[in-house]
Amino acid sequence: MKIEGKNAVTELLKTDRPVDKLLLLKGAESSCGRIFAMAREKGVRVQFADAKALARESETGRCQGVIAFVSDYEYAGLDELCAPKAGARLVIVCDGIEDVHNLGSILRVAECAGADGVIIPKNKSAQVTGAVVRISEGAANHVRVARVPGVNYAIDRLKESGFWVYGLEAEGENLYRCDLTGDVALVVGGEDRGVSPLTRKKCDKLLSLPLKGQVNSLNASVALGIAAYEALRQRT
Amino acid sequence: MKIEGKNAVTELLKTDRPVDKLLLLKGAESSCGRIFAMAREKGVRVQFADAKALARESETGRCQGVIAFVSDYEYAGLDELCAPKAGARLVIVCDGIEDVHNLGSILRVAECAGADGVIIPKNKSAQVTGAVVRISEGAANHVRVARVPGVNYAIDRLKESGFWVYGLEAEGENLYRCDLTGDVALVVGGEDRGVSPLTRKKCDKLLSLPLKGQVNSLNASVALGIAAYEALRQRT
Repeated sequence: MKIEGKNAVTELLKTDRPVDKLLLLKGAESSCGRIFAMAREKGVRVQFADAKALARESETGRCQGVIAFVSDYEYAGLDELCAPKAGARLVIVCDGIEDVHNLGSILRVAECAGADGVIIPKNKSAQVTGAVVRISEGAANHVRVARVPGVNYAIDRLKESGFWVYGLEAEGENLYRCDLTGDVALVVGGEDRGVSPLTRKKCDKLLSLPLKGQVNSLNASVALGIAAYEALRQRT
Repeated sequence: MKIEGKNAVTELLKTDRPVDKLLLLKGAESSCGRIFAMAREKGVRVQFADAKALARESETGRCQGVIAFVSDYEYAGLDELCAPKAGARLVIVCDGIEDVHNLGSILRVAECAGADGVIIPKNKSAQVTGAVVRISEGAANHVRVARVPGVNYAIDRLKESGFWVYGLEAEGENLYRCDLTGDVALVVGGEDRGVSPLTRKKCDKLLSLPLKGQVNSLNASVALGIAAYEALRQRT
């Protein structure tokens, strides 16, 4: 897998994840000085290439002169996300987020809000590719993502280990009237169809944001950001 | 200007804004039935075209069989946004949002949170184009956008008419400790450089979201969504 762009690669180098190789634009030692220094310090092999060669290697077309080669994204186990911890847990469940921009944005929100992990299904969902890592501005390197055969199975497991499972949906209860101080899993659905009917039924409750306008929904990552930060607010 | 896509055109037809013409995919009378009916009821001229002709006319490449032709976006005056009203006012100020996706997303947030308007500068900023309207899922048709020569001038005007002006920035005061129940203007900066130094100085205060991870910032529209909904929460 390739991780591209200055921010994403910087965040990658901060983690313990093994980096096979770093490809840098010839002459970019100064503009990419920090990345170069971090790579050297970690003993990562650095190779210089011209703009043409970088463009050929780039999958996103926006590598900013830096491409890191790593083994495929290492998903976490569902058990890790369900493990008990001191303090309230927060897990995000993605139900059919097919757009890579949305998934990247959701991982960024999850990381900033200090979530314990994100769950995505193996099918009918965007996976954590290099593009998603880049869109997440490297957050994907710091937040645990578990990949499960099905979302409903994961919800059962979350409930068994003490989570309250809340779906973010239009016709639910007002988010601000819900106690989010316990162990909470927030389920966010795809742009077009929202949380699927069966998954809605599995949720302990559906929660909605008050909508004051005439357009009937917020973008998935924005809605999740508002809900996750409301949980954070209540917990502090 | 062209407005494309089912959601964006539906939202457009709900407004009083004059529509010059509607271009519909031949045979799409049933799948676009609601749009067709709304257009007929409003007396909008409907013209049918084949997929090739639509693709030629489409600016976004994702028109979903519907393109509406309207006069250029009608910006509001700054005076309208500063006008007194019953209840607390909320205005969003964009300081150098150059990405059309971000602007579209911000307009969607502003509309859903019931903001009184959005201010954008004439230069070094994305403008309300057809693509922005589409990305906003039509929210741009319902929220007032004022275009000003400079953001700092607009902030002076907002202060004169009784607004507290808060910049969303990393090194500010905790958002949740700030009283947002009065007339509030939230200033959101561009992805790369944030709120510009001079504009930061003009703000009454800088406000920050608590960041629990290692990646140092949220996407502009997500951060704005969290702040605008916190204002909404405090007000109800």
